[in-house]
Amino acid sequence: MAITPGKRMLRALKGERLDKPPFWLMRQAGRYLPEYREIRSQAGGFLDLCFSPKLACEVTLQPIRRYGMDAAILFSDILIVPYGLGQGVAFKEGEGPVLDPVRNASDLSRLSLDGFHERVAPVYETVSRIAEALPKETTLIGFAGSPWTVATYMAEGGGSKEFVAVKRWAYGDPEGFGQLIDLLVEATVSYLSHQVEAGAEVLQLFDSWAGALPEPGFRRWCIEPTIRIVAALKARHPDIPIIGFPRGAGTLYVPYATETGIDAVSLDTTVSVAWAAEALQSKLPVQGNLDPILLVAGGDALDREVERILSGFSGGAHIFNLGHGVTQTTPPETVERLARRLRA
Amino acid sequence: MAITPGKRMLRALKGERLDKPPFWLMRQAGRYLPEYREIRSQAGGFLDLCFSPKLACEVTLQPIRRYGMDAAILFSDILIVPYGLGQGVAFKEGEGPVLDPVRNASDLSRLSLDGFHERVAPVYETVSRIAEALPKETTLIGFAGSPWTVATYMAEGGGSKEFVAVKRWAYGDPEGFGQLIDLLVEATVSYLSHQVEAGAEVLQLFDSWAGALPEPGFRRWCIEPTIRIVAALKARHPDIPIIGFPRGAGTLYVPYATETGIDAVSLDTTVSVAWAAEALQSKLPVQGNLDPILLVAGGDALDREVERILSGFSGGAHIFNLGHGVTQTTPPETVERLARRLRA
Repeated sequence: MAITPGKRMLRALKGERLDKPPFWLMRQAGRYLPEYREIRSQAGGFLDLCFSPKLACEVTLQPIRRYGMDAAILFSDILIVPYGLGQGVAFKEGEGPVLDPVRNASDLSRLSLDGFHERVAPVYETVSRIAEALPKETTLIGFAGSPWTVATYMAEGGGSKEFVAVKRWAYGDPEGFGQLIDLLVEATVSYLSHQVEAGAEVLQLFDSWAGALPEPGFRRWCIEPTIRIVAALKARHPDIPIIGFPRGAGTLYVPYATETGIDAVSLDTTVSVAWAAEALQSKLPVQGNLDPILLVAGGDALDREVERILSGFSGGAHIFNLGHGVTQTTPPETVERLARRLRA
Repeated sequence: MAITPGKRMLRALKGERLDKPPFWLMRQAGRYLPEYREIRSQAGGFLDLCFSPKLACEVTLQPIRRYGMDAAILFSDILIVPYGLGQGVAFKEGEGPVLDPVRNASDLSRLSLDGFHERVAPVYETVSRIAEALPKETTLIGFAGSPWTVATYMAEGGGSKEFVAVKRWAYGDPEGFGQLIDLLVEATVSYLSHQVEAGAEVLQLFDSWAGALPEPGFRRWCIEPTIRIVAALKARHPDIPIIGFPRGAGTLYVPYATETGIDAVSLDTTVSVAWAAEALQSKLPVQGNLDPILLVAGGDALDREVERILSGFSGGAHIFNLGHGVTQTTPPETVERLARRLRA
C-alpha cells in the first residue's frame, strides 16, 4: 500500500482529488480574532505590523493554532509593492489606505525598483520566521496583488467604487499606463521570488478588481500581465504552484484560468459551483467559494452551504476557501464550526 | 414596400435586429449636465426633486433634448418604494441614502402598503407629464429596484460593501426575510402597474446587487421574486416589455434571462460581448454594455469600444447602453460624440 506523501494543500494543487479537501480562509488572520486585536494594538500602525517580522509571524500563526488550517498565508498587504517602489502609502484608522496618487508618466518617474528589496526586507524575514514556525503539515502561501488591482490603488490614491482615475489613464494613454503595469510585473516577480527563497511554498495573485474591466481591458491588464508573471516565476521556481484570483471576472474566469499558466483558480462568491465544476475544475484545481457572511450568520445556513460546495466540487481537485476575506464581525465560534466540519 | 411601424426602442424589445440599434444611457439625467445641476439647486433635497412632477419631468427630458436618445427613463430613485412603505429615507448631500434599518419581523411590521400610492403619487404624475411631453419617437421607461437590491438598502440602512446586515437576516431567518421580499414583490408590481397606467411603455428592474449572492441565494432572492413580478405585470399589461438588469450576475445571467420571463436583459460592463451574443442574445434582446468611464476618457478608446460592442451584438436585437450609470465627471461632449455615432 502506497501512502501518498506530502502536504494536503500541495497535493490538491497538483490536481489530486482528496476526500477531505484542504482548507484555509482568505484574511484568516485578522480583526475577528481577539488575539489579533491584542497584537494589533501593540503594533502602532497597520504598516508597522506588516513590517514587524515578529508580530506579523505571530498573527499569521494565530488562526493555524486555533483552527488547524492546511495553509497559512503571510500576513501582509497588497500595497507593500507600491510602498517598496517609493510611493507614499498610509493606512488611516477606519478609512482604509491612502496613497499619493500616480496618474501619469511624471508621477511614474518617481517610482523605481532601486531599493525595493531593502524597503520590503522585513516581509521576507517574516516569511522565513513563519516557515520555521509552521507545523510540518501546514503549507505557507506567499502573495501579491495583481498589477491591475495594485494599479487601481496607486492611481486612485486608495479604494474606489468607479475607478475613474485609473481607467482614465488606462483608456486614455494605454502605452503610458502600460509602463506602470510593466513596472508592477517586474516588481511582483521579484517580490514573489524573494518570498519563495524565504520559504513560501505556494503563491497567490489577488486581482480583487478584475471585475471592473470590460473584456478587452481584462485581457490586456489582467490576463496579459499574469501570463508574464507566471512565466517568469515558473522559470525561476518551476515547482511552486501559483493560484490566481480574478475576483468578479464572471465568464472571463475561463480565459484567465486556461491562458495564464496558473496552477489553480480561486473563485469568488458569485461563481456558480455547478458551472465552475464543469468549466474550470475539469481543467485545473479550484479554490473557494463560501460567502464570508455565512461565517457571521452561522447555523444551518452555513452548514448547508458548506455541504453544497463540498459536494459540488467533490469530482476533482478542490481547496475549500471563502469567496472573499473573513469579515471583522465574524464570531470565532462559527469559524470553529466550519473548521470542525472540514477536518472531520 | 412595407414600412415597419413603431418606435425603434419597442421594435428592438420585440426582438427586431436594427441596423442602427436604439440607445439610451442609464442615469442619462444627472449631475454631469449643467442644466440638471441648475434644477437640482432649485429643488431643495434629492427627494424633493423626485417628488416634484414639474422638475422631475424637466430633468428626465434634458438628455433627450441634447442627445435624442430613443428612450427616456423616469427620473426617480429605487428607494421610493421603501419610502412609500413607510420607511424613513433621507438623502444626505455627498453621503448617499440613509434609511432607518429594517432587520427583523418587528421592524417589518411598521411597514405597509396602506397609503403607499398616496405617498408616491407625485411619481405617477411625473410619468404622465413625461409621456405627454416626449417626442413621438421616444419611448418612456418606468422602473423600480428589484426586491433583493431594495432589501439591501432597507436592511443595511444605506449603501454597503459587505451586506452583513441583509445577509445575516436572509441567511439566518429566510422565512422572515422572505416576508420583506414578498412585501417588496407586491409593492413593486403595484408601483410599476401604476407607472404603466400613467404612461410608461417599458419597465426596467434594477438588481444592482445581484452579484453579491451565491447561486442558491441568487435563485431564491433574485430569480424567484422576478418571476413573480414579471408574471403579475404580464397578467395586467401583457404588451409592456420588461428589461431585467441583474448586475454582476456573471454566468448566472443565463438562468436569470431564461427563467424569469423578462423580455430583454441588460448587461453590466464585465459581461463578455462574445459570450453574451451566444448565450443570451440568441434567446432575447440584450442591452448594454459600454464602460461608463469611457465617457470620461473619450477619444479613440471610446470609439473603439463602441464599434466593438455594436459589431459584437450586430447579429440580433440590441439596445445600446452603458454597463452602469453615467458618472458625474462625464464631460457632456463625450456623450455627444457617442450619440452622434449611434444616430449616424
